[in-house]
Amino acid sequence: MNGAESLVHTLLAAGVDTCFANPGTSEMHFVAALDRIPGMRCVLALQENTVTGAADGYARMTDRPAATLLHCGPGLANGLANLHNGRRAGTHIVNCVGDQATYHRPLDAPLTADTEGFARAVSSWVRSSAHAGDVGRDAAAAVQAAQTEGGGIATLILPSDTCWDEGGVVGAPLPRPTPAALDPHAVQQAAQALRSGAPSLLLLGGRALREEALALAAAICAATGARMLAQTSNGRMQRGAGRHRIERVPYAVDAAVAELSDLSHLVLVGSVRPVGFFAYPGKPSRMEPDTCATHVLSRPQQDPLAALRALAESLGAAPVPVPATARPAPATGAVTSEAVAQTLAALLPDDAIVVDESVSFGRAFSAHSQGAARHDWLQLTGGAIGDGLPLATGAAIACPGRRVVTLQADGSGMYTLQALWTQARERLDVTTVILANRKYQILLGEYRNVGANPGRTAMDMMDLGNPDLDWISLAKGMGVEGARAASMEQLNDLLSQANARPGPFLIELAC
Amino acid sequence: MNGAESLVHTLLAAGVDTCFANPGTSEMHFVAALDRIPGMRCVLALQENTVTGAADGYARMTDRPAATLLHCGPGLANGLANLHNGRRAGTHIVNCVGDQATYHRPLDAPLTADTEGFARAVSSWVRSSAHAGDVGRDAAAAVQAAQTEGGGIATLILPSDTCWDEGGVVGAPLPRPTPAALDPHAVQQAAQALRSGAPSLLLLGGRALREEALALAAAICAATGARMLAQTSNGRMQRGAGRHRIERVPYAVDAAVAELSDLSHLVLVGSVRPVGFFAYPGKPSRMEPDTCATHVLSRPQQDPLAALRALAESLGAAPVPVPATARPAPATGAVTSEAVAQTLAALLPDDAIVVDESVSFGRAFSAHSQGAARHDWLQLTGGAIGDGLPLATGAAIACPGRRVVTLQADGSGMYTLQALWTQARERLDVTTVILANRKYQILLGEYRNVGANPGRTAMDMMDLGNPDLDWISLAKGMGVEGARAASMEQLNDLLSQANARPGPFLIELAC
Repeated sequence: MNGAESLVHTLLAAGVDTCFANPGTSEMHFVAALDRIPGMRCVLALQENTVTGAADGYARMTDRPAATLLHCGPGLANGLANLHNGRRAGTHIVNCVGDQATYHRPLDAPLTADTEGFARAVSSWVRSSAHAGDVGRDAAAAVQAAQTEGGGIATLILPSDTCWDEGGVVGAPLPRPTPAALDPHAVQQAAQALRSGAPSLLLLGGRALREEALALAAAICAATGARMLAQTSNGRMQRGAGRHRIERVPYAVDAAVAELSDLSHLVLVGSVRPVGFFAYPGKPSRMEPDTCATHVLSRPQQDPLAALRALAESLGAAPVPVPATARPAPATGAVTSEAVAQTLAALLPDDAIVVDESVSFGRAFSAHSQGAARHDWLQLTGGAIGDGLPLATGAAIACPGRRVVTLQADGSGMYTLQALWTQARERLDVTTVILANRKYQILLGEYRNVGANPGRTAMDMMDLGNPDLDWISLAKGMGVEGARAASMEQLNDLLSQANARPGPFLIELAC
Repeated sequence: MNGAESLVHTLLAAGVDTCFANPGTSEMHFVAALDRIPGMRCVLALQENTVTGAADGYARMTDRPAATLLHCGPGLANGLANLHNGRRAGTHIVNCVGDQATYHRPLDAPLTADTEGFARAVSSWVRSSAHAGDVGRDAAAAVQAAQTEGGGIATLILPSDTCWDEGGVVGAPLPRPTPAALDPHAVQQAAQALRSGAPSLLLLGGRALREEALALAAAICAATGARMLAQTSNGRMQRGAGRHRIERVPYAVDAAVAELSDLSHLVLVGSVRPVGFFAYPGKPSRMEPDTCATHVLSRPQQDPLAALRALAESLGAAPVPVPATARPAPATGAVTSEAVAQTLAALLPDDAIVVDESVSFGRAFSAHSQGAARHDWLQLTGGAIGDGLPLATGAAIACPGRRVVTLQADGSGMYTLQALWTQARERLDVTTVILANRKYQILLGEYRNVGANPGRTAMDMMDLGNPDLDWISLAKGMGVEGARAASMEQLNDLLSQANARPGPFLIELAC
């Protein structure tokens, strides 16, 4: 058995059965091993940021890692931005990067780069295998590391000689890491703060945003008068009919500061202290008042469900019913952010997955989506635009039978449009709505905050309208059918049709 | 004056007047400064690997740096692969990366990443400005560093408060760095080796591949019986009618070893010792025989023209005439690699710029292009696929009035297809020929070298034909007109038309 074969056997034995790939010459022995050994679903993407973003989407929906297969340092570099987003989402990825042979690397051949250096900033675990005999052991350790509570990106670098040399040994699966233990004192402290009656907030992140955890949090709030909010950006949030509603800390600094201005106690559950996405002159970086006390009920590396259970028990908080919400009707009239959000909520299929990289135009979605059918809501977590189409691709691979609806800003969508091809190739049930405002609208807003009206040069860097992007042609070029909507009525029709048919469909919405 | 304004003034004063940009929120003050201060040509690209690849193409054609404007660590990450290629090409770039404010960075906001860590592996110079008052001085140092002989990628990281704070000071332009001095002993040693009569090779790289240097090298070869070759991958080579011909060290290991098997002396001129692009089981990493002596006439950081002049003088080598070559006629009949090369050579406009990311299908171009009109030939240097369309974009910005002809493999082209939009927006005179074989052909060849025939899973990772990419639609989606050619006659017609009209045009050649 060569090293490559030991890798594939080890991954399969550890339950990793999906591989998002964009291989190169140095990975041919891995490709050959994948070809010989049945059991791994291999999904090709045409650029590496789709590989990594899809692996992230897969893990967000399954809570377990897929593998990637990337080509040397530059191939990894192309996928770093979505590994960054995945890291912020607490994702799980076994990130396999082929590389120059151990003895060839010192000769600095043209493609040689600082693979480990690139990996380190986005990975929680990095190892470069030294011998074929180590690959299986290293792969088992990578799968274990990737399953860490709160997120694990385990980058396993595989020099090509470690794959073609004989002497591979299948690594025995290692147990999923036990989450860091809860601190009983933290539970007591949080309970005491919430019992004080002073304005308090439960700030939820990670798996605390799933249905069962939300119910516990709602019970705690009902028992204590505390409020609950989610972090601004979340890897996955369960929402819609039958689920307790939660809003998010606003993105805009002023709104976030206003929202938290009364707080005496901030209780973190799988979340971190709120911080502005960016700094602005004269505005604070932190959102809560200086006088607010912060209590860590659970860190992202701890089990948030266990933490909420312990807190609810300590407080004697009884379950509370989910308030009924009515599903809105599809909107008509002008194409506005509100109208689009309403229509999406109205027409969302049951148990859909919403991938949201809508940036500026989609901010109204949150307010309307509580009335939608139950769904999972996946957001851009790390601010590195270009993860919507890849995330949708991976989520659809992870969840056959569930519709994926992607709200995709046009500027961000152009970063990783190659993902549409993979959606066509794999016949994935993805409806993509391109919110085509033909500008970097968020930047125009930020620019006006700088206190200036954009002139010609500034607009040259923020306007996408010269020439107009034609998303129907772009989709067609990659085998995805599409149609244009210029009114809410057209959007309603197209969305209903798209969600009901198998395979991908793209709607370009002029807005 | 704020820091951002001091940056723009400093760049302009130092002769940097072109900025390839994909800015974000943290760069809005720079965008505002660029808007207020006239003189900088700002070119927007829709993904950062086009930004960096275009900056590389610009520098290859002008021998001076453009600036980039990138958004935080993840924006830089998206552009790393073409910075890697640029580094291997010996390019010159002032790589400006906006980042979180100095006081905001420790709070680890979602977009915060290891910007310096990402930069270090591809940069020859990295600095993060600490105060607005430092930005001008740092920018002047960056421009100087970027102009280093043999290549300089100077990454200047600009926290957002260094741009909005007042106190900016324009940096005085610093002199272009003097190349490392030639070693007279190295000239003597090389002359002695070449005079020995034993089989000798001049291996040329960098600026040694320009017209004047090639003439000197040809004179040296004529005087001594030595041969000359270029490195396998070169940033820019001057070629065609009226120029001395040079071939390259073959890409394939066996062919390269055979080509160099007789050598007693290897003389490096702005080049490095040949090394295989990848290692293969049972094949050598080095190309020349163990018994061959290596002599470094000039390192990439030294002036190759001065080195060749000194060597020619030492040898008393007299100029030799350029052998006449006939321009081939356009090819007819079947679409083959040879036929395409012949047609390209036949129809190339005078003083064109050929950007070559043709990978497997374009390997015949070199043999035919000597008969073409004089041209500059820009290659993929670092093996990180996806630089053809961006390089062409930057070269066209650098050289208005000269036609750019891009030979673009389809698989590689998909990495950075966004560059077509910038070509449309800037109305660049670029003819793109997509060599659409609908597979990663080079990988299929490598796979067979592994000793296996690809099965279904392997083909799933190397075949681009399910669904077929439709490049005419992709180009149309970004505002570039295109047409399909399925025969040499159609290619000949389309190429003639495309090269004669202003603006970009794309030809999808089925092959």
